[in-house]
Amino acid sequence: MEKIRVTIYNEFHHEKIHESVRKVYPDGIHAAICSALEQDGRFETKVAVFEMPEHGLSQEVLDNTDVLFWWAHCLHEPILDEVVERIHKRVLEGMGLVVLHSGHASKIFRKLMGTGCKVKWRESDDLERIWVVKPSHPIASGLPEYFELPKEETYGEHFDIPDPDDVVFASWFSGGELFRSGCCFERGNGKIFYFRPGHETHPTFYDENVRKVLVNAALWAAAPGGVYQTYGHWLKDNYSK
Amino acid sequence: MEKIRVTIYNEFHHEKIHESVRKVYPDGIHAAICSALEQDGRFETKVAVFEMPEHGLSQEVLDNTDVLFWWAHCLHEPILDEVVERIHKRVLEGMGLVVLHSGHASKIFRKLMGTGCKVKWRESDDLERIWVVKPSHPIASGLPEYFELPKEETYGEHFDIPDPDDVVFASWFSGGELFRSGCCFERGNGKIFYFRPGHETHPTFYDENVRKVLVNAALWAAAPGGVYQTYGHWLKDNYSK
Amino acid sequence: MEKIRVTIYNEFHHEKIHESVRKVYPDGIHAAICSALEQDGRFETKVAVFEMPEHGLSQEVLDNTDVLFWWAHCLHEPILDEVVERIHKRVLEGMGLVVLHSGHASKIFRKLMGTGCKVKWRESDDLERIWVVKPSHPIASGLPEYFELPKEETYGEHFDIPDPDDVVFASWFSGGELFRSGCCFERGNGKIFYFRPGHETHPTFYDENVRKVLVNAALWAAAPGGVYQTYGHWLKDNYSK
Amino acid sequence: MEKIRVTIYNEFHHEKIHESVRKVYPDGIHAAICSALEQDGRFETKVAVFEMPEHGLSQEVLDNTDVLFWWAHCLHEPILDEVVERIHKRVLEGMGLVVLHSGHASKIFRKLMGTGCKVKWRESDDLERIWVVKPSHPIASGLPEYFELPKEETYGEHFDIPDPDDVVFASWFSGGELFRSGCCFERGNGKIFYFRPGHETHPTFYDENVRKVLVNAALWAAAPGGVYQTYGHWLKDNYSK
Repeated sequence: MEKIRVTIYNEFHHEKIHESVRKVYPDGIHAAICSALEQDGRFETKVAVFEMPEHGLSQEVLDNTDVLFWWAHCLHEPILDEVVERIHKRVLEGMGLVVLHSGHASKIFRKLMGTGCKVKWRESDDLERIWVVKPSHPIASGLPEYFELPKEETYGEHFDIPDPDDVVFASWFSGGELFRSGCCFERGNGKIFYFRPGHETHPTFYDENVRKVLVNAALWAAAPGGVYQTYGHWLKDNYSK
Repeated sequence: MEKIRVTIYNEFHHEKIHESVRKVYPDGIHAAICSALEQDGRFETKVAVFEMPEHGLSQEVLDNTDVLFWWAHCLHEPILDEVVERIHKRVLEGMGLVVLHSGHASKIFRKLMGTGCKVKWRESDDLERIWVVKPSHPIASGLPEYFELPKEETYGEHFDIPDPDDVVFASWFSGGELFRSGCCFERGNGKIFYFRPGHETHPTFYDENVRKVLVNAALWAAAPGGVYQTYGHWLKDNYSK
Repeated sequence: MEKIRVTIYNEFHHEKIHESVRKVYPDGIHAAICSALEQDGRFETKVAVFEMPEHGLSQEVLDNTDVLFWWAHCLHEPILDEVVERIHKRVLEGMGLVVLHSGHASKIFRKLMGTGCKVKWRESDDLERIWVVKPSHPIASGLPEYFELPKEETYGEHFDIPDPDDVVFASWFSGGELFRSGCCFERGNGKIFYFRPGHETHPTFYDENVRKVLVNAALWAAAPGGVYQTYGHWLKDNYSK
Repeated sequence: MEKIRVTIYNEFHHEKIHESVRKVYPDGIHAAICSALEQDGRFETKVAVFEMPEHGLSQEVLDNTDVLFWWAHCLHEPILDEVVERIHKRVLEGMGLVVLHSGHASKIFRKLMGTGCKVKWRESDDLERIWVVKPSHPIASGLPEYFELPKEETYGEHFDIPDPDDVVFASWFSGGELFRSGCCFERGNGKIFYFRPGHETHPTFYDENVRKVLVNAALWAAAPGGVYQTYGHWLKDNYSK
C-alpha cells in the first residue's frame, strides 16, 4: 500500500529562544510529531518551518501532501497570505489538515472556520484528563475511555468555533475548566481535525496516547474524499421528458 | 399573551420513603419545579405523578400540554407502555419535552433517542461546575459563563445518545468527570431538552441559575413549530410542463 | 485482509406472489444485492429471509455479521420483537446497518431513529436523478456528480427522521418531488445508512452506480468503530491532587 | 414591544442599467424586500446601497442593526474589506445576517463559511418548487408543504458550504437540478440564513410565500442570543477544594 504523505509545519521559534522548551524538544516539536508518524510505518513525512522560503509550503510541496500538520504560536500574523490562500485551496480540494494546540489562532484555521476561534487560557501545571466523548469515531480507535497528561496549559470554553461535525474528545482540567479538545470539521473535500494539547514546555508529544491520536488523525484526514465538483455556469445537462 | 401550558411529571417516590429527600423537597420535586415556572409568570402549570390513573397523563392532559417536564428515577419500567406511546406521538406532533437528571433512563427518552442513553455515575458530593458551551442558544440566555452547584451526584461520559442538535451546557465535576449536561434534540415537530442536574438529595431545583434554565428550556421547547406534514400515499400533486 | 461479513436480509415475499417482480428478480432481491458485494471481492455474504427460523437472524448469525442489509416492504409488523431487540443491541455494539428503500418503515429503523420515519410516496414510472450533495463522503466515492434511474417509485419530503449526521445523496423526481435519499446516522458504536432506491418492480439493484453505493455503504458501515464503553455505577476512578 | 431594526443592503446596480430588471423592480430590489418587512409591522427598516459612503454600512449603522439583509451579484469584489471586517465582527457579536440568492458569492458570506460557496447555475425560466424539509423550524412557520415560483434562475448542487446547522428548504427545478435553498448557520452569537431565490429579472420578492420567509428569517436571525464571551488570558477563576 502506498504511504500517506504528511507534511509537518512547526514555526520552530520557541525551541530556539527558550532553554525550557529546548530541554523538552531539543530537535523541535516537529521532530517529536514526525517520530510518532514514522514509528507507525504508514506515513512518509516532510518538515516545513517558518524560516524556509514560503515557510516550506510551496505549491509543489502542498500538491504532494495528503495531510498537513500545523503547530504555531507566536508567528501567526507573519505567515504570508498567499501561502494561507494556497493551503486553503488545497484543503477544499481534499488535503487533510491537523491543527495542534495554539494553532487554533492561526490564519489558516480562522479562515476555514469563519469565526474568531478564541479560547480562555491559563499557563499552569494543571492535570488534563482527556475523555473520549465519541467512541465510535476512528480518531478514538485504540484509546482508553480517557487518558491523562500530568501537566498541560489550560484552555477553557467558550471555544469560538462553528459547531464541529464531531467532537471526539473533551478535556477536564484540575483547575476547573473543560474544553472540546478533539474537533472534526469538513470543508469542501478536506477533513480538518483540531487537537488541543501540545504546549511547548510539556512533553505532550511523547505521550503514547497522544501519539496514537496523531496517527489516527492523519489516517482519518487522509481518507480518500470524493471528486472535486464542477461549479459555475455549466453545459446545460437538462432533463426532458 | 396566552400562557404556555406546562405539565410536570414527577414519579414522587423518593420523597415518600426517604427522610433525606423529604427534608430537601417536603412537597415533592415537582413543587420546586412548578414554583420556578410559576414565579416567571408566563406559564400555567399542572402536576402529574406516578400514582395517578394513567400517571396523570391522559390523552386529554397531553392534548392540553405545550411542554412536558419529566423527573423519574426508580419507576421507569412500571410506566404504562400505552402512556409512553401517547407521549411519543404528542412529541412528534410538536409537544416539547424537558427530561431531567435520571430521566435519561426513562422509556420515553430512550424511545425518542433510539440508543441506550446510559451514563457513568457516582453518588458523591462533588462540586459541579456547569459551563455554557453554546452561548448563542436561547436556553443559555441570561446565564453567566458558568455556574456552580456545590454538591451534586456525578455523571460521566460516554453518554450514549445520538449526537445532539445542540450542546448548550457541559459539566465539570471535582472528582474528574465531565458530561454533556444540556442537550437539545428535535424529533418530528417536537423539541426535546435533556438537563443533567437534579439529584433528589440536593437542593438543585432551588438554585437560581437552574431555575433560569428551567424557564428558558420551557420557552424554547414550546416555541411554535411547523405544521405536522402529510405522509403516505398522497393525492398526486404532480408537476407537468 | 480479512473479508467483511455481510448478512443480507430480504423479506422475499413479493418475488413469490408477483410475476412482475419475479421477472425482474427471479432469485430474489437479495440475490441481486449479494452479487453486487460478491463481485467486489472484499465481502463474505450470507442471506436471511423472513421465513427462516428467527428470520435467519439468530444471535450467532448477528454475532458473526459486520454489516446487515435490510430490504422489506409488507412484512414489517410480523418481525419478531426479540429479533428486533437483538439487532438493535448489535448495532449499538458496532454492527453496521444498511436500510434499503421501503425498509424506512421497518421496526428496526424506527426503533433506532425514534421518529415515525414516514414519507410521501407515489407508485409511478418517474425518472429519479440522484445528486451527490456531500462529495467528500466515502459513500460517494467513485460516483459521478449525479446518476439516473430511468424508472423508480417516487418518495417525497418531509421524511420524518432525525437530522442525519450526513446527507450524501438527494433525489430529484420528474414528477416534482425531491428526497434525502442517502442518509448516514451513528447510534452507539453502529453506523447506519439509509438508501432510498430499490422498488421491487424496477431493476435498480442491477444499476452499476447503485451497486457502487451498496459496496461503499458496506465498507463505510463496517469501518472499525471504537470500543463499547463502560456504563453504570463504576469503580470510582477519581482525581485527587 | 420594541421593533426589530433591519438594514437591507442591495448593490442596486442591475436596476439602473437593465430595463428588464427596472421593469420588475422599479424602485430597486431593496424596496420590495423593505415592503415585505414593513407590511409585517414588527420591523423598522433602513436601506444601504453600494454607492453610499462605506456602502451605507458605517459602524454606527451596524451598531444599530439587529438583522442585515444582503442582496448582491456583480459588485462583490469592490466591497471595501474594512466594511466586510466590520460586518463579520458584528455577526460574531450577535447581529443576524440574511443572505439572498447570488449573495452566496459575497465576501462576507464566504468569510463566514470558510469555503468557496460555489454553485452550479443556469439562467433559465425553470419552475422552482421549494419544499419544506424541516417543518419544525421557525423559518418554515405558516408555509405550505411546498410552494412554487413559476420562473427562476436555476442553481444546482454541489453547493460548496459547510454542513448547515439546519436545512429548512430544498428546491426542485423543472430542468433537473435540486438545491439546499434555505440554510441556517450560527457563527459566534450571530445567526445566518441563506435563501436561494431572488433573481433580479423575476418578481420573486413579491411572492407571498417568499415574503413570509423573509419575515420569518428576520425574526429568527434577530432572536436574542447569549452574551458574547470572555476570551484570552483571564483572571484565574480557579476551583480549589
